[in-house]
Amino acid sequence: MKCKTIEFKDGVLKLIDQRKLPGIVNFYEARTYKEVEFAIADMVVRGAPAIGATAAYGVYLAALEFKDLNREDFLVKVFEADKELAAARPTAVNLTWAIRRMEKLLKANQDKSRDELLSLLLKEADKIVREDIEINKKMARYGNEIVPEGATVLTHCNTGALATVDYGTALGVIREAHYSGKNIQVYADETRPRLQGARLTAFELVEEGIPVTLIADSVAATLIRDGKIDLILVGADRIAANGDTANKIGTYMLSELALKFAVPFYIVAPTSTIDFEIVNGKEIEIEERSAEEVTHIKGVRIAPEGIKVYNPAFDVTPAENITGIITEKGIVLPPFREELAKLKG
Amino acid sequence: MKCKTIEFKDGVLKLIDQRKLPGIVNFYEARTYKEVEFAIADMVVRGAPAIGATAAYGVYLAALEFKDLNREDFLVKVFEADKELAAARPTAVNLTWAIRRMEKLLKANQDKSRDELLSLLLKEADKIVREDIEINKKMARYGNEIVPEGATVLTHCNTGALATVDYGTALGVIREAHYSGKNIQVYADETRPRLQGARLTAFELVEEGIPVTLIADSVAATLIRDGKIDLILVGADRIAANGDTANKIGTYMLSELALKFAVPFYIVAPTSTIDFEIVNGKEIEIEERSAEEVTHIKGVRIAPEGIKVYNPAFDVTPAENITGIITEKGIVLPPFREELAKLKG
Repeated sequence: MKCKTIEFKDGVLKLIDQRKLPGIVNFYEARTYKEVEFAIADMVVRGAPAIGATAAYGVYLAALEFKDLNREDFLVKVFEADKELAAARPTAVNLTWAIRRMEKLLKANQDKSRDELLSLLLKEADKIVREDIEINKKMARYGNEIVPEGATVLTHCNTGALATVDYGTALGVIREAHYSGKNIQVYADETRPRLQGARLTAFELVEEGIPVTLIADSVAATLIRDGKIDLILVGADRIAANGDTANKIGTYMLSELALKFAVPFYIVAPTSTIDFEIVNGKEIEIEERSAEEVTHIKGVRIAPEGIKVYNPAFDVTPAENITGIITEKGIVLPPFREELAKLKG
Repeated sequence: MKCKTIEFKDGVLKLIDQRKLPGIVNFYEARTYKEVEFAIADMVVRGAPAIGATAAYGVYLAALEFKDLNREDFLVKVFEADKELAAARPTAVNLTWAIRRMEKLLKANQDKSRDELLSLLLKEADKIVREDIEINKKMARYGNEIVPEGATVLTHCNTGALATVDYGTALGVIREAHYSGKNIQVYADETRPRLQGARLTAFELVEEGIPVTLIADSVAATLIRDGKIDLILVGADRIAANGDTANKIGTYMLSELALKFAVPFYIVAPTSTIDFEIVNGKEIEIEERSAEEVTHIKGVRIAPEGIKVYNPAFDVTPAENITGIITEKGIVLPPFREELAKLKG
């Protein structure tokens, strides 16, 4: 993508403000971990891998903020900040994965000089960013193996360069298939209520000239039934040890139709999205977001005052509805519990 | 409802402007059949029964406009106008049903004086309006029989007083259940892209104090799976002779989930919605509406310039996914081809 989703330079984390796309290309600058926390909670930045990388800089910025405290206070304060960062959004496990990785480094090097420690933390965050791009490229190559020539691919939400550091997960596979000359077409669900499909996926694909048709979320079912979709590719926010997958609300519905009409349904996600600590999807906390996301669009009220709203941000697709999980270590096929366990560590 | 959806007085058809609800309660006035045609095409008025009643006044206004022509020219002109009215929206059969009913009267009385004929036409349109309310009340009473005490009911689009002359089809059943003290709760799908659920159903239910929770369309699937929905009630725009039912886009998806999780799924529609001339749903023309309905909300652009859009207004739910069809003549159960045929004529 032309603009970088995440960039850290001279002590400033620069994020493309995804709340305003595609109309306005604006950047949000975070100089403190609190500003990073806000950016994640308010969805300035979103997408499981992207919020992981963002949070890593949040940990660094917290360490920078508290660097003049004594060691004990320093550690207490940074770990408190980490907790706040981790609580900014509860469902995507990449967030805690990145924070834990930073904390591990911090603990291992707490005896080093503060400046040395800060330098190590910054390098680690930069490394997470670099690795994310590499991981996406690897997933894209593995994923491309299962994309048929001339396929029509359905995707949901945004899993592209904007959801990651660059390239994307499910959209990374779509990019790879397109650039390898497979002549694919994409249907993008608009993805209510935040419209990540209409605003972000459409934006990325139109920008790169990848053929895309935008649909309301409820149109997908008939396309699947009528044989118009060859493949469904979606991302993930958290994958349980048995393969149950939390992803953007609406994913589950697609998986049921895919199952019924035998359309291959793949999750594309880095192994950092797998949460081996939870046995199945029932243990995944589903974030509920504000009513305003449903009752207002760009500040314009579309529902009557006083209406009650139920607005879960994610749903869980059961492992049995999933054809395969495309990771940077290869494509995982059922039985997922056994096969995912092999990727552990 | 406090405001009337459709009212004809002193040569003016007054329609509540549903494009602007719930924010603005405004009225659209039609004095010519062309203005009626626009109101239907642009969805000032929508909902299969409501556009039927509206079109009946359109035929009357056409007759009024051409009343000074000689008989031959008069008939030609009025029938031409009827064709334009019928083409305003292709899917809902109530539109052609109402127009044909008016034409039948016109043909049978073409020898009468022009004033007498006009008076008959106006009376017929008024009768369609009165009958629609009676029919809705009858459907509501039949429908209420299958609503369990304390049920949580899911509905889609708007099938209320705003979709009919008054009371509603599926929402009429919900009203009846509520007012008969059954202590029901409603989940309303927002119904993208036109948001009839968020704007109209929510508006009607909030106004009457019927407990309602608004959801994005893709939330329904998990509610159904998780046993949170006891009953699904939707309307219809056209029912084929075999029971296949065209209704607002998104209905089909609900029916698949209902089938899988054994949630009763009922269509509520007057017998004027049944099109005995078509054998099954494959013959139903599905209206495709403009891209702007998906790319803009209240004039605000939410998708990038140049994006291609596929925007079907309806989908077809196969008869085998339908538990029953609630009509003013009773509840029709499978086998639908045989049972619907009994209602003919």
